[in-house]
Amino acid sequence: MTVKIGLIGAGRIGKIHAESIVNRIPDAELVAVSDVNREAAEWIGTTFRVPHIDTDHQAMLAMADLDAVAICSATDTHAHIITDAARAGKHIFCEKPIAAELAVIDVALDAVEQAGVVLQVGFNRRFDPSFKAARAAIFSGQLGEPRVLRITSRDPGAPPISYIKVSGGLFLDMTIHDFDMARFLVDSPITEVYAVGAALVDPAIASEGNDIDTAVITLRYANGAFCTIDNCRETTYGYDQRVEWFGSKGRVAVENHTPNRTVVTDAGGVHSPKPLHFFLERYMDAYVAEMQAFIHALTTKTPPTVTGFDGREPVVIGLAAWKSLRENRPVKLYEVDPGRK
Amino acid sequence: MTVKIGLIGAGRIGKIHAESIVNRIPDAELVAVSDVNREAAEWIGTTFRVPHIDTDHQAMLAMADLDAVAICSATDTHAHIITDAARAGKHIFCEKPIAAELAVIDVALDAVEQAGVVLQVGFNRRFDPSFKAARAAIFSGQLGEPRVLRITSRDPGAPPISYIKVSGGLFLDMTIHDFDMARFLVDSPITEVYAVGAALVDPAIASEGNDIDTAVITLRYANGAFCTIDNCRETTYGYDQRVEWFGSKGRVAVENHTPNRTVVTDAGGVHSPKPLHFFLERYMDAYVAEMQAFIHALTTKTPPTVTGFDGREPVVIGLAAWKSLRENRPVKLYEVDPGRK
Amino acid sequence: MTVKIGLIGAGRIGKIHAESIVNRIPDAELVAVSDVNREAAEWIGTTFRVPHIDTDHQAMLAMADLDAVAICSATDTHAHIITDAARAGKHIFCEKPIAAELAVIDVALDAVEQAGVVLQVGFNRRFDPSFKAARAAIFSGQLGEPRVLRITSRDPGAPPISYIKVSGGLFLDMTIHDFDMARFLVDSPITEVYAVGAALVDPAIASEGNDIDTAVITLRYANGAFCTIDNCRETTYGYDQRVEWFGSKGRVAVENHTPNRTVVTDAGGVHSPKPLHFFLERYMDAYVAEMQAFIHALTTKTPPTVTGFDGREPVVIGLAAWKSLRENRPVKLYEVDPGRK
Amino acid sequence: MTVKIGLIGAGRIGKIHAESIVNRIPDAELVAVSDVNREAAEWIGTTFRVPHIDTDHQAMLAMADLDAVAICSATDTHAHIITDAARAGKHIFCEKPIAAELAVIDVALDAVEQAGVVLQVGFNRRFDPSFKAARAAIFSGQLGEPRVLRITSRDPGAPPISYIKVSGGLFLDMTIHDFDMARFLVDSPITEVYAVGAALVDPAIASEGNDIDTAVITLRYANGAFCTIDNCRETTYGYDQRVEWFGSKGRVAVENHTPNRTVVTDAGGVHSPKPLHFFLERYMDAYVAEMQAFIHALTTKTPPTVTGFDGREPVVIGLAAWKSLRENRPVKLYEVDPGRK
Repeated sequence: MTVKIGLIGAGRIGKIHAESIVNRIPDAELVAVSDVNREAAEWIGTTFRVPHIDTDHQAMLAMADLDAVAICSATDTHAHIITDAARAGKHIFCEKPIAAELAVIDVALDAVEQAGVVLQVGFNRRFDPSFKAARAAIFSGQLGEPRVLRITSRDPGAPPISYIKVSGGLFLDMTIHDFDMARFLVDSPITEVYAVGAALVDPAIASEGNDIDTAVITLRYANGAFCTIDNCRETTYGYDQRVEWFGSKGRVAVENHTPNRTVVTDAGGVHSPKPLHFFLERYMDAYVAEMQAFIHALTTKTPPTVTGFDGREPVVIGLAAWKSLRENRPVKLYEVDPGRK
Repeated sequence: MTVKIGLIGAGRIGKIHAESIVNRIPDAELVAVSDVNREAAEWIGTTFRVPHIDTDHQAMLAMADLDAVAICSATDTHAHIITDAARAGKHIFCEKPIAAELAVIDVALDAVEQAGVVLQVGFNRRFDPSFKAARAAIFSGQLGEPRVLRITSRDPGAPPISYIKVSGGLFLDMTIHDFDMARFLVDSPITEVYAVGAALVDPAIASEGNDIDTAVITLRYANGAFCTIDNCRETTYGYDQRVEWFGSKGRVAVENHTPNRTVVTDAGGVHSPKPLHFFLERYMDAYVAEMQAFIHALTTKTPPTVTGFDGREPVVIGLAAWKSLRENRPVKLYEVDPGRK
Repeated sequence: MTVKIGLIGAGRIGKIHAESIVNRIPDAELVAVSDVNREAAEWIGTTFRVPHIDTDHQAMLAMADLDAVAICSATDTHAHIITDAARAGKHIFCEKPIAAELAVIDVALDAVEQAGVVLQVGFNRRFDPSFKAARAAIFSGQLGEPRVLRITSRDPGAPPISYIKVSGGLFLDMTIHDFDMARFLVDSPITEVYAVGAALVDPAIASEGNDIDTAVITLRYANGAFCTIDNCRETTYGYDQRVEWFGSKGRVAVENHTPNRTVVTDAGGVHSPKPLHFFLERYMDAYVAEMQAFIHALTTKTPPTVTGFDGREPVVIGLAAWKSLRENRPVKLYEVDPGRK
Repeated sequence: MTVKIGLIGAGRIGKIHAESIVNRIPDAELVAVSDVNREAAEWIGTTFRVPHIDTDHQAMLAMADLDAVAICSATDTHAHIITDAARAGKHIFCEKPIAAELAVIDVALDAVEQAGVVLQVGFNRRFDPSFKAARAAIFSGQLGEPRVLRITSRDPGAPPISYIKVSGGLFLDMTIHDFDMARFLVDSPITEVYAVGAALVDPAIASEGNDIDTAVITLRYANGAFCTIDNCRETTYGYDQRVEWFGSKGRVAVENHTPNRTVVTDAGGVHSPKPLHFFLERYMDAYVAEMQAFIHALTTKTPPTVTGFDGREPVVIGLAAWKSLRENRPVKLYEVDPGRK
């Protein structure tokens, strides 16, 4: 069986998925692409010889032989496109986050459930070989029960203020991946969040963007364990993506990936390369692997590895983090998501 | 000039300092030792050929040619021995903490100030070659302004409940070193603490010891930076003592020390030794160096590197951490130390 | 310009190059494939939709619009296919080694020179990001003049005796890559070889294969520097591929690549993954990059980065190594290649 | 029992052993010191309160209650002082090498045997915690049978030509430690040596010192395994002391020791400290441990861990290396030590 896919959104991340589908996944075929920007859609259409090119996703949803869509459009369009696709009976891969508001997410997830289609949300880090190996070690039980999870996640440089303004802010745009990682590596619900943060990189991020660029977040799990996350929008040394899970029998850490394995020793010391610079380098394999997993779920009719619920929970945690930051107190998740308790 | 020192308290840490004074510091001479346990005092007296042996510190304080004392007795005796020694005009090295109550500490510090003697508090980690090198890198300015400090500090095994009951609890017994490190590596006052914790290692530590064994603590600095500390009373892999300082131009980390530098590679992977097992191995050089620094301060009449104020501040932070844990909210330091603001 | 390529030899390495050409190199097109084993040719033909499939390379050489061939057939066919392709005016990528006899190589290189076509030999390690970065550091001059180069190259497991018998033996089959690396990282001719070796892995490699499986080789460079290589056909821990270049101002090492960057710490020590298991994992990026470089040389009409001479020299060194091993004495290269001096 | 020791030779290494005996070994007492330079003897005598000070070793050998001597005088005096001490019935610790000529060594070893005293030769690296741990892993059998041992040994800077002239040359002065390590880590006799070398650091080392400063040496073991050693008299980055033992089930490496465990990451890469600068830093623990072992052998009446034979063999290998270098051919050990076969 070959899965016929339509790509909705032909920007940076859309190109990545297009290339994966065309060059790396024999079981998938890219048959349609749409983007509100026609040029972007045409670039992908031409490069990858995609027969259907459009500025709107409705036409491809009407294609009878289209099996699935990959939603890579602007974040604020994700939820209603999910709804449209579900109603058209198409399976759905959707980039994170589904939306910044729980009510909006819930409408989309309802549509998915009603339609009985598959929805996989794009938490790509779960497919990274290092994080997968860490999880395998943890879930094997060899390291015992969890006590403390430490996540360091720092971007190489802050995005423009214009982006920050519409991003949902640090917790929904950047930390959301770490909230997912906190769920991926500890098998217990998160119940409470405490967040501190400030604009230490650039005061304009606070004054104009109404956001922060540096944060430390503490999470409590229902099983008694804790998680501490630290974020920053800027480093001088590339993309800093590390995790350490500590449990009753040992710990497992994920260190940064580097472009090569050279080590220079000279009068100044011992020098090795900086981490890979940004997510396109660091997580390229993970992007391919998540799309392969989506196709695999469809062809084998098995559940997707990142569900709609997995897409919703980090948003709940992010909203609680914002409330915590503003009120400078720990916030229970049910305070922002009353239905959960 | 040779500094004549009397040792007060001949337990484990007293032996370490006795050996440093006798074998490693040509400028110092151990001339007296006292311990409420006469056998302990005699063991040190015999081993290191110390002329004066006693069960009480008063006699040595009356010795005209005694220059200084090293206080290594039980924690609850530190403050009044400091006061006694100061009034006798002796310089003082005192193990941490000075006391668990600020009012008690303040009486002792007043006596020191009145007498004009030197007081150095035993925050030995400041003298560890790795932490010293990290601080040197930070204070050189090459790494820019501080953003986030991460401290991981885990003991190899929990002490007996009997010890825990009189220890001041995790924050004053164990985290106090990390609070000092948080002050050592960032040159800005700490203003607020948020602490979470639980007894994940052994429920008896909570039920009988009224303490916790695992904690995550968030600190705010006046300059806007943050610190996150994680502690645990137990690991399977030895003494875990790591720090990472992250700033605007880079980061510096201190990794664990190991007993040797062998690396075995076999069918199971690449294996290197666990960290050194506990503080006696890990910080032996630091113990020698702090006593050398104390003697150096006396012989050169320069200020000590760890002052009475440096001994008091971590207690303030620890008390705030306890209040935060109990009330599950961030606590300002002035809430537990009203005089500071 | 799109380069039209024919693949000659559809075995393991042929498949790798086919996939690179089809999926990774937009400027190249795979238009023909031949293999003496028709099934192998058909598998690639079908998988990658190649129009021309054959059991012989002559027909594709007759195709007017074919620009180049990639020779991945059995080693003993390389030289005459090079000659055929050169006479047909096709550019040539050829897997190493060109041949095991210098006279045979020279006939092929003459044909290439007469025809004025491009020939690139498949020393893929030159295109590995780590070895490239090491060379860049060396050739920048920052590490000074070379003194000693150390190469460790060990396979995860010995090939079957049947393969060993026709392989040219350890020095021409395996060490040949290290001889090329010795030339790649030090810019001075190699003049003398001393080799010791034995069958320590499997005595049948000596008794039946007339070969060795473990060796230590010493090379002298004209500039006075030295190289030491150690090889083994078997490890328990994967593919061991390391280099250390030591010079007057410092050194640069290439460490092994690993499948991920996890580190587990437990009661048994600190554990990280074994090296990648074999050349297909370790050098996959290098295989893509060398084919990209070949296409780039053709489209930009620039010289190839690995020339026919670069293909010939390691064979000279390998023949000298065999002579050295048999006679247990250092051998000058001109002893096996009289024309060079 | 307290072992009364006399120190013969009060130079740099003599001071190290004096300090170990006085401060680190409760079972030993330093009761005499001699040096042809009276000031040197007096400095140690005063510093460590040694009762007997002399310019000659004869007087201390006449002391009835002297148990042992530590010979740290100039190399060319070792052998006859060993003989004198043995005849006086004193146990002997002697710095390496015993002598540069086998006949001279044999006279001394005969005297030791006749007298039935203990002789331990100062191959201190055997007592280094890393090399000891490597040997323990190897001799446990977990890594299988040996195949290739790699030793890298490089000094931070070349000694003066005046020293080089009387040093016995690179192989007897510097590589001798590596020859001992080659014996320490593989339990099979060395049978053949091939050495190449040159003066790449400083041509005056060849022209005036008649020596080399850079070398690569290949050793054969009777069991079929090989060893490759590379030496250099100079680095820009400190003392480079590494070993890798590779066997049928795995490998064990000893990496360099560093002054601390800090890692700085900045825009230029990831930086950690250079190796410890020279042998006094690198092997200080080993110097203490070897003297403790000597005292332990005496007090427990157990054989010493480094025997006279262990002191002789590396000289045989070194002499063979010189012959190999001069004749540019592999040399069997019996060629320079006919009695062995």
